[in-house]
Amino acid sequence: MAVGKSVQRVDGVAKVTGKARYADDFTMPGMRIAKYLRSTIAHGRVLTINTSKARVLPGVDGVFTYQDIPKTKFATAGHPFSMDPGHVDVADRLLLTDYVRYMGDEIAIVVADSDLTASKALSLIDVEYESFQPLVNSEDILGDDAPEIHKGTGNVVKTHSFVAGGNLAEVREECDHLIEGRYKTQIMQHCHLENHTAYAYMDDHQRIVIVSSTQIPHIARRIVAEALDMDVGLVRVVKPFIGGGFGNKQDVILEPMVAFLTKKLDGIPVRLRLDREGGMIGTRVRHPFDVKVQVGLDKNGTIKLINFDALSNTGAYASHGHSIISAGVAKTHYMYPRAVYSCNAKTIYGNIPSAGAMRAYGSPQMTFAIEAVMEEAARLVGMDSVEFRLQNGARSGDKSQITKKPIMTCGLLDSIRKGRELIGWEKKRKEWPKVQTGQLRRGLGIAIFSYGSGTYPVCVEPGSARLILNQDGSVHLQVGATEIGQGSDTVFAQMTAETVGISFDKVHVVSAQDTDVTPFDTGAYASRQTYVTGQAVMRTAKQLKTRILDYAEIISGLDAELITIADDNIVIAETPEIAVMSVRDVAVDAYYDKNRGGQITAEVSYKTRNNAHVFGCTFVDLSVDIPLCRVTINEIYNVHDCGVVINPLGAEGQVHGGMAMGIGAALFEELMVDPDSGRIYNNNLLDYKVPTIMDIPDLGAAFVETYEPSHPYGAKSVGEAPVISPAPAIRNAILDATGVAINELPMTPKSIFKYFKKAGLL
Amino acid sequence: MAVGKSVQRVDGVAKVTGKARYADDFTMPGMRIAKYLRSTIAHGRVLTINTSKARVLPGVDGVFTYQDIPKTKFATAGHPFSMDPGHVDVADRLLLTDYVRYMGDEIAIVVADSDLTASKALSLIDVEYESFQPLVNSEDILGDDAPEIHKGTGNVVKTHSFVAGGNLAEVREECDHLIEGRYKTQIMQHCHLENHTAYAYMDDHQRIVIVSSTQIPHIARRIVAEALDMDVGLVRVVKPFIGGGFGNKQDVILEPMVAFLTKKLDGIPVRLRLDREGGMIGTRVRHPFDVKVQVGLDKNGTIKLINFDALSNTGAYASHGHSIISAGVAKTHYMYPRAVYSCNAKTIYGNIPSAGAMRAYGSPQMTFAIEAVMEEAARLVGMDSVEFRLQNGARSGDKSQITKKPIMTCGLLDSIRKGRELIGWEKKRKEWPKVQTGQLRRGLGIAIFSYGSGTYPVCVEPGSARLILNQDGSVHLQVGATEIGQGSDTVFAQMTAETVGISFDKVHVVSAQDTDVTPFDTGAYASRQTYVTGQAVMRTAKQLKTRILDYAEIISGLDAELITIADDNIVIAETPEIAVMSVRDVAVDAYYDKNRGGQITAEVSYKTRNNAHVFGCTFVDLSVDIPLCRVTINEIYNVHDCGVVINPLGAEGQVHGGMAMGIGAALFEELMVDPDSGRIYNNNLLDYKVPTIMDIPDLGAAFVETYEPSHPYGAKSVGEAPVISPAPAIRNAILDATGVAINELPMTPKSIFKYFKKAGLL
Repeated sequence: MAVGKSVQRVDGVAKVTGKARYADDFTMPGMRIAKYLRSTIAHGRVLTINTSKARVLPGVDGVFTYQDIPKTKFATAGHPFSMDPGHVDVADRLLLTDYVRYMGDEIAIVVADSDLTASKALSLIDVEYESFQPLVNSEDILGDDAPEIHKGTGNVVKTHSFVAGGNLAEVREECDHLIEGRYKTQIMQHCHLENHTAYAYMDDHQRIVIVSSTQIPHIARRIVAEALDMDVGLVRVVKPFIGGGFGNKQDVILEPMVAFLTKKLDGIPVRLRLDREGGMIGTRVRHPFDVKVQVGLDKNGTIKLINFDALSNTGAYASHGHSIISAGVAKTHYMYPRAVYSCNAKTIYGNIPSAGAMRAYGSPQMTFAIEAVMEEAARLVGMDSVEFRLQNGARSGDKSQITKKPIMTCGLLDSIRKGRELIGWEKKRKEWPKVQTGQLRRGLGIAIFSYGSGTYPVCVEPGSARLILNQDGSVHLQVGATEIGQGSDTVFAQMTAETVGISFDKVHVVSAQDTDVTPFDTGAYASRQTYVTGQAVMRTAKQLKTRILDYAEIISGLDAELITIADDNIVIAETPEIAVMSVRDVAVDAYYDKNRGGQITAEVSYKTRNNAHVFGCTFVDLSVDIPLCRVTINEIYNVHDCGVVINPLGAEGQVHGGMAMGIGAALFEELMVDPDSGRIYNNNLLDYKVPTIMDIPDLGAAFVETYEPSHPYGAKSVGEAPVISPAPAIRNAILDATGVAINELPMTPKSIFKYFKKAGLL
Repeated sequence: MAVGKSVQRVDGVAKVTGKARYADDFTMPGMRIAKYLRSTIAHGRVLTINTSKARVLPGVDGVFTYQDIPKTKFATAGHPFSMDPGHVDVADRLLLTDYVRYMGDEIAIVVADSDLTASKALSLIDVEYESFQPLVNSEDILGDDAPEIHKGTGNVVKTHSFVAGGNLAEVREECDHLIEGRYKTQIMQHCHLENHTAYAYMDDHQRIVIVSSTQIPHIARRIVAEALDMDVGLVRVVKPFIGGGFGNKQDVILEPMVAFLTKKLDGIPVRLRLDREGGMIGTRVRHPFDVKVQVGLDKNGTIKLINFDALSNTGAYASHGHSIISAGVAKTHYMYPRAVYSCNAKTIYGNIPSAGAMRAYGSPQMTFAIEAVMEEAARLVGMDSVEFRLQNGARSGDKSQITKKPIMTCGLLDSIRKGRELIGWEKKRKEWPKVQTGQLRRGLGIAIFSYGSGTYPVCVEPGSARLILNQDGSVHLQVGATEIGQGSDTVFAQMTAETVGISFDKVHVVSAQDTDVTPFDTGAYASRQTYVTGQAVMRTAKQLKTRILDYAEIISGLDAELITIADDNIVIAETPEIAVMSVRDVAVDAYYDKNRGGQITAEVSYKTRNNAHVFGCTFVDLSVDIPLCRVTINEIYNVHDCGVVINPLGAEGQVHGGMAMGIGAALFEELMVDPDSGRIYNNNLLDYKVPTIMDIPDLGAAFVETYEPSHPYGAKSVGEAPVISPAPAIRNAILDATGVAINELPMTPKSIFKYFKKAGLL
């Protein structure tokens, strides 16, 4: 049994020994370096740009401005193409711009023989700007006389609203309690270890090869073709090992530019690598949300309605734009699915870095609002925070108010009970009133979450895999889904071993994707790998097994129905201790018998048409130092229903990573923008505070296993969800400790001070 | 119709613009350079080797001798693995040796940070040898007191003999004429443009990646695994563009060594590149043959028997060894298949560079002997050389005396007639007696050939292909067969376009092979690509077409039986002018419809179990300057029956190239070894004379198209055969011009002088 057992990552040794090769570990003879010229204002127009001195600098191959680029606008969001014209991403981007929309906008690019020459050339470019008012806050952005960041938009990307599950006004009338809150979340950066980097070259006069640190090679291929008006068959994208992405590489940021540059320069290899400072602002950030939420309850504390007015700022360019708030609203709906669920959502432009996909895609922001207001609601009706959620939280068989489909498996309530047990909730609840006064106070908090597995039914969900049986009885597995550090290759290897009947270490995963040969898959996002790609892997493994057995029948004369594969052997199904021959024997015959056989391979492309919802919660026990405004987490647990856990070791790692990121969101991280100038204060890892191992407490990860019937191994997903609920749980624990409700993120000492001062604690 | 039409090579632009990237055009950060220490004697033993000074030279990563290497002997010949233990290549090779078998044998290797450091380190290694008698000539090699080059062999690799088609003694009795001759061919070198080069690295702690200029990536993978005692699934071989091979890269020469070195050095990339001097001696050469042949005729000039006593020298190590003479004897048998065919063949070791595969694999040597003695025979019975061959040459329906299978198509006699016409044989025959005296004489010559298409039934003949339908209606084609300059990728693209029903320019061929993902195929040799791999390509294309049509049925509601594909459209089969939709439309729906479809791909692995024999001839009109002993070719034609010609432009190129090589063999090329010392005189392109464009006359290529029923497009092969018959045709024309029979190759002025002197012409 390979599935469900903790195994070492297939890429583990490669990564810890430094042998794994990332995009920057490859080079090519004659490779050139490209560097952007970024705007020094946040909003305005380039009046003149003089590149003549840069162009003649020895070692410079080319200097390109908005005048040199294709005039087709394109969208960068890493979504699959949609056949529904109403469901396409906003195409508001050119390769370079003369209209500056954030401080750091790309207005020119230099290609030179070295980094140094490129930098020198950049310093030789003279630019004159006409400046407009930088629009950072929503009040300014939506002000009557605000200049339009994108013409004809009124600075609004999109709005949508809906009421699901009943008539809002009627239900509101029936409520015994109405409670409202307003919650704000910050701009965050993903801070993956490896910065964005890509290079491109041409092998002939028409085909472009791009090597990129991307989560979505197949989507990148299509978007490059769109941006350069080429046939998609002429673009090849290769993804080597990748040092993290968290959604920031689910966006096509550098690929169209390197493709454009190599095409302009007759195919010579051109590398474009963002440094940390460029990457912090020039890639994508997490959308800051401003959410007004109203909750209605009956006298028993049952939630009757949840109603939002939510605003999301996508920054300079749409990127994933309105999808984020749209997905955030839809996915969080499964937490309390029996209430009427209503929403007005709006996404606006602003002169801040573009926001895009980031781990959990809108859900952390929405969940912060929901779980904060739910805490207020529980307190209002005098219920224990845990009991309140046990009463109102989702159960198996609940129907989505939006899709009208039932939730097939839901371990939410068991997760809550398990978390309550782990943290010692009841005992502490009893004892703690006495430690909730004075300078150092302790608090308990809970927050729940729900999330999806993949994007269906919003987007198409294709997964594909190919298996090759090697001469030694091992297999090579190719998947279009991308390993980006989350451990998906390992999980796919387990599934393959399990279904084919061979040892885990006989599955060799081809970790690099190459769109010329890799089976189609849209990539790593939306916690889709195990759930969506797993469907294709299972089917491919089954097909390979069938083909191996069919061939074993030819060799052995035993009906394929009578035999199966176990422990790398062809065995009698009824008496699996009897090995007829090894899988290796089958392979050798298939490869080398002169008169029969052929290489045994399997390939399946499969579209998943379900979505399995995952559930869980965070429990936190923390101390608040009132004078220092400092929060110390004593204990924290994430409990997950992610279906069957394929690789417990890997799942635990995912949960730990997500929790650390969630703690970062709660207490540390914010990309700060000056509202007057649009200047970004902390575009580096010294000033932007990502928590380190010193800042993170011991993390508790636990699982409540359900068996998801829509997945071949009963799995759902665990990639993104762990990041969602730590921040509201911490917020609720601070409230518990201090009586002060902090309604914006992050809850840094500076911010806490403001609230404590207002509350009279200081 | 894409098949049968002249098209530009798919790799043409890439190659002429220099954009095509070869193994040496890739590099990796930290790559090291390896260099061999080669022996300075031809036969002997290393008594001491002191590497201590080299090891401590700064920049040296390692120095390895025979003491450091695995002790498993391996075979290097690029044959597929055989399940028949009696049919395996001779494993007589270690990675390095302390027993020196030719001048240049590899006794140590240095790895350093640069070429210069590596060379310097080599100069610091001290070696003491014990010398033995170098064995160059067969008399010495087989002498009673000859030392054994490989222990226990008596210096004989293998012998075999057979009589096919009757009782030799009886038939000999019936003959009216018996004629005998002895013919010798020289050592030649392939002289491909790109020298042998390979590099290797490791991505983790167990898997080795090798990038190599090889004709046989999948075979190289297996042999590396054997040489290093690893599982084959842990070895990956990548073949980029390649600058020619001609069989010299159908041998696994550098790959095991670079794999060994990177493994020893913790996975750092190590490159091993032979320079021309090293490659001329340290790779493979063409086996020199010494053939005694006896032909028996009846009084009508009908050949009754052909009987050989043939000796082949494989040099220091077996490599392809006895396979060469064995194949040479078997394949030439089809020229005159109605005669009793008898052979004693022996392959011996010698202290000369190892001989291996070279274009036409033993047939040029055998055909020189056969077509020389046939010319003597025709003259003996007083028949015109052409008429003699028309009377005795192979015809469709003739049965092989060896396999008892009929020759399905044979255009030999038509080829001869066409060649006779092209050269103006009859007119010249009448007029020329008057120009066959004096100092400048003219002569006419003919020689015929036969050759196979692939290696079946001797070896397994697997071909595999995979097709991916792209979103734009184009396809990517992956084949395990290797494009090595012969134009196979172009031919596969034509087949695909033809069978799927799309435009030729919509077929993108993935030209690089990567054993991790490329469908299995044993590679480029034995003129097998079009004939063997073509079978798989056709079947894959058919499968793709069926899948496209099945999916079009889903979209269109039209029964898949009613529709077909033409000109990139789905059309009504009966009325193909009516396009239902484009292939692109089908692709987009299959990729992106949310509720149906998936990527459309096809993959077929197929073993060919036939062999199609090709036939043809060379006609030559030349002048001989008696005092200068110089031959000038006035006109030369190769006429080929290669079945249906898939790409006439490409086939013509193949024929031209082969003829030039054949002329080189006839008049110019010989790798010269001093019989006393074993020293090689001309290990470079200044002293080894490959004919250039200045030495080659206008070349005439013509085709007699037959339709080979065992191939889906009626094709046979044309890769190697063009090299076979020019040399004997030239030899026969010199005989015609001068009356002097030259019975050894090459026929350089120096050699001709010897014969003319003996004949009293000088």
